[in-house]
Amino acid sequence: MTTLYIAPGSCSFAAHVLVRELELPIEVQKVALLAADSPIHRINPLGKVPALEFDDGTVLTENSAILPYLADQKPEARLLGPVGSRERARVQSWLGFLNSELHTSLRPVNRPERFSDDAAHFDAIRAKGRRQVTALFEHIERSAEGLWLTGERFSVADAYLGVFLFWAERGKLLDWASLPKLSALFEAYRARPAVQVARQVEQAS
Amino acid sequence: MTTLYIAPGSCSFAAHVLVRELELPIEVQKVALLAADSPIHRINPLGKVPALEFDDGTVLTENSAILPYLADQKPEARLLGPVGSRERARVQSWLGFLNSELHTSLRPVNRPERFSDDAAHFDAIRAKGRRQVTALFEHIERSAEGLWLTGERFSVADAYLGVFLFWAERGKLLDWASLPKLSALFEAYRARPAVQVARQVEQAS
Repeated sequence: MTTLYIAPGSCSFAAHVLVRELELPIEVQKVALLAADSPIHRINPLGKVPALEFDDGTVLTENSAILPYLADQKPEARLLGPVGSRERARVQSWLGFLNSELHTSLRPVNRPERFSDDAAHFDAIRAKGRRQVTALFEHIERSAEGLWLTGERFSVADAYLGVFLFWAERGKLLDWASLPKLSALFEAYRARPAVQVARQVEQAS
Repeated sequence: MTTLYIAPGSCSFAAHVLVRELELPIEVQKVALLAADSPIHRINPLGKVPALEFDDGTVLTENSAILPYLADQKPEARLLGPVGSRERARVQSWLGFLNSELHTSLRPVNRPERFSDDAAHFDAIRAKGRRQVTALFEHIERSAEGLWLTGERFSVADAYLGVFLFWAERGKLLDWASLPKLSALFEAYRARPAVQVARQVEQAS
């Protein structure tokens, strides 16, 4: 059986949501990321989630690969467009933006120690990071094409964006009143049964 | 006609190589990134390349979307696997890794000012960044499955990796003698006619 390795509260939440949305026959297994004896180190030498392990032992990593792969297991759900289409390319473009810009811009905010060995630099690194995160969320607010990122249909890109909206809420990073589209998207995201089930599973001990 | 906007020497080189590899009917247009009057600001509000503008005026951004889109225009060239296949997912995983890990880890090295407003921090940020870049290239060296990233067949992920090998060479970031697989891959990359043509076009004034 295929297994999806997740760490509660991490960016693997998007893949977890897709497994629930699409009711895929995939076992979801929680792992601790920082424990030296965590099974994740056997699965992914980079020690990161999400990781998808197939029954032949091969492993797929990276959200921008796992999320499209999961969506393509049930194309009729249309969480990603048909191959070669611009619809698909637009969703993939959002995945790339969220992955390479938004996710990485949160790193200086949450883990300034990755950017300097001198703790005296951390406040400046965090402050600069927060301004970049704000600018990126404002770009999303301006660019979203409907209730969801690419219009009125929920896509794998929205499943991924939801992770960062939860993080922004938890870290009090955003002035939600100035972001009406993102606020509505977040409300609709939280209302999805798949999101609610995934959260319950991740929060259970 | 579809237009690909590139900036010479930037990460848009990968898309440029694919246009040549696949002999796609796409016009390649060079733009200046930092000039205030550059046409890129009309095409992409984030001011970034690559950007692919279709004849109806819609624009696609992000390498992790553009590179698969280009490959899917000529599936018979097999630069990406069939939709839903693990072969495709593995290439997409490398694209995600290069996009979100390697590319972003080069930022502190090349642009420390993005991480702190205090110039006194830049040396520490650059030094930390260089160590992370080295670790990521070592991970690639260990993980490449053949001459190319996913085996003996050149893929869109290799087209993308080549960009960072050129950057690493230019910035003297790597000890090539300790990276035999990456050295061989880089040599094979530079020998490809499409890479040579793309370089000549980008270097011409």
